[in-house]
Amino acid sequence: MRRNIRIVGMGMYLPKRKVTSAEVDAIIGTKEGWSESKTGVKIRYYVDGETSSFMGAEAAKEAVKDAGLTFCDIDCIISGSGTVQQAIPSTASLIQEQLGLQHSGIPCFDVNSTCLSWVTALDMISYAIEAGRYKNIVLVSSEISSVGLNWGQNESSILFGDGAVAMVISKSASGTAGIISSHMETYSAGAHLSEIRGGGTMIHPRGYNEETKEDFLFDMDGPAIFKLSLKLLPDFVEKVFQGTNLSLDDVSMIVPHQASGPAMNLIRRKLGISEDRFMKIIENYGNMISASIPLAFYEGIRQGRIKRGDTVFLLGTSAGLSIGGVLLEY
Amino acid sequence: MRRNIRIVGMGMYLPKRKVTSAEVDAIIGTKEGWSESKTGVKIRYYVDGETSSFMGAEAAKEAVKDAGLTFCDIDCIISGSGTVQQAIPSTASLIQEQLGLQHSGIPCFDVNSTCLSWVTALDMISYAIEAGRYKNIVLVSSEISSVGLNWGQNESSILFGDGAVAMVISKSASGTAGIISSHMETYSAGAHLSEIRGGGTMIHPRGYNEETKEDFLFDMDGPAIFKLSLKLLPDFVEKVFQGTNLSLDDVSMIVPHQASGPAMNLIRRKLGISEDRFMKIIENYGNMISASIPLAFYEGIRQGRIKRGDTVFLLGTSAGLSIGGVLLEY
Repeated sequence: MRRNIRIVGMGMYLPKRKVTSAEVDAIIGTKEGWSESKTGVKIRYYVDGETSSFMGAEAAKEAVKDAGLTFCDIDCIISGSGTVQQAIPSTASLIQEQLGLQHSGIPCFDVNSTCLSWVTALDMISYAIEAGRYKNIVLVSSEISSVGLNWGQNESSILFGDGAVAMVISKSASGTAGIISSHMETYSAGAHLSEIRGGGTMIHPRGYNEETKEDFLFDMDGPAIFKLSLKLLPDFVEKVFQGTNLSLDDVSMIVPHQASGPAMNLIRRKLGISEDRFMKIIENYGNMISASIPLAFYEGIRQGRIKRGDTVFLLGTSAGLSIGGVLLEY
Repeated sequence: MRRNIRIVGMGMYLPKRKVTSAEVDAIIGTKEGWSESKTGVKIRYYVDGETSSFMGAEAAKEAVKDAGLTFCDIDCIISGSGTVQQAIPSTASLIQEQLGLQHSGIPCFDVNSTCLSWVTALDMISYAIEAGRYKNIVLVSSEISSVGLNWGQNESSILFGDGAVAMVISKSASGTAGIISSHMETYSAGAHLSEIRGGGTMIHPRGYNEETKEDFLFDMDGPAIFKLSLKLLPDFVEKVFQGTNLSLDDVSMIVPHQASGPAMNLIRRKLGISEDRFMKIIENYGNMISASIPLAFYEGIRQGRIKRGDTVFLLGTSAGLSIGGVLLEY
């Protein structure tokens, strides 16, 4: 079912601390150039005191301003992020507090499907917007990966960057903008291919010590994820287009998760997409977990590569292992 | 907007370890009877090796069986829980794995608004079910609070219990069962009245030590939460009924969050609800975070106090501070 929603404003926040791949090479002790050649990332940002809620609030303020609205017009704040600021309460509540809206009553909650959190939240909330439950929601992804990287695991630690993206999403006039189709699949056969085993109820932080410390850091088997994703993606993409009159050829711009440069290139070729229809921004930001897709979307618009009326395809994989796709008319 | 959904199956799992209030009194070193008099809790359950995904899967299996379905009929698994098993991936993915459905592709994601997680997920997913996106979803709340209690903070530590509840939710024939109205509000003025400051990106587990250890444990100012909730609830309840032809008097059963026995009694009186229309089960389970409301709902049905066609009002507060209400025809 088509959902008549429109992205009416966008904002982002990048941490103050800019980190080159040469700096990352120095951290892990490889020769200069290794990180960039492995990942395609030149620059990423790491927080330097900024919290998730601070970054999320900054992005949200910019998005609401961009929409020509004020927070009086906003009736829901959702954090669609793969990381949280604290175990309790929701990051969305902390963003509301940071925005100075602590007496507003604006409902706040989090949606989590790791790198797909923002896309899953967009997909789900679109039904509520279409039905009139909410008029203007702020959907934020604010991610801090830098605190949880395992610098002993070179292949994963060099990939990530921090930052936040927010969009204001409203109901659109019928047929002008909207989600045309969307689909999600989870294959937990890959649940342990990228994980942080600790930090929840299974391995409580009180169990943190020299022996267990890696349980609290990000652990990824990149090649295995890539292999599983590549196997699943072609059929998945077909399912997203099922029931529409469209095919991948009709899409103006594919906005993929920015997992890793080389993997993105291979997936692009596997799906038969030319470079000009594939938003790849990992070079300047790294993998920003669930903020990657909305940031690439935002960049596409800023660079004039995505215009109103264009058919855009948000597509990503995440820990879980999940695949998510949202086909929308911008 | 009414959403035509029906709860078609229910299941639950309680940990093997049953803990009396006398045992809790011994842990905190008070005289026998103190915990029960403070909380109204006689018995709660603590995990003894069980994980969130194990408990969630057991509850889900029972719910799917109760619905007369198999997992081939299930097209979405959502964890609406205030706690997670691991930092990455989502608990829903881990439940899928535990169910042996790792190659099924059934989409899995988490929704979090602490004690309201299950209710918020029900509220949001109802729009997607109504729109035909999903036919039969499993909505699980699986909570382990026992690992994160601060035994130096008597008032909060004695309240909680572990366990899981799952329901299968399907589309109903128009007008037979459904959500009549729902509403949510968040007042982050109360964001730090109940929290776990650590475990996320702000205070990473690597910072765990003797000095910081309380940051990784549940911290609650019960009287302040109660005061704020009591102030907000009457107006909130009015808003849930706005636009319906119903009032609180038309509700067959109020199913509240099981926050604490004495607080529940005071709120019940403030709202002018008689005991027979108020599902209070905290005595036998403690506060089970977001599993409390679905468990009280389940108990109401098992005890014959809630019947098909009854108007049921799910109502709770959560860390955030959020208030949520779902008015439904069962």
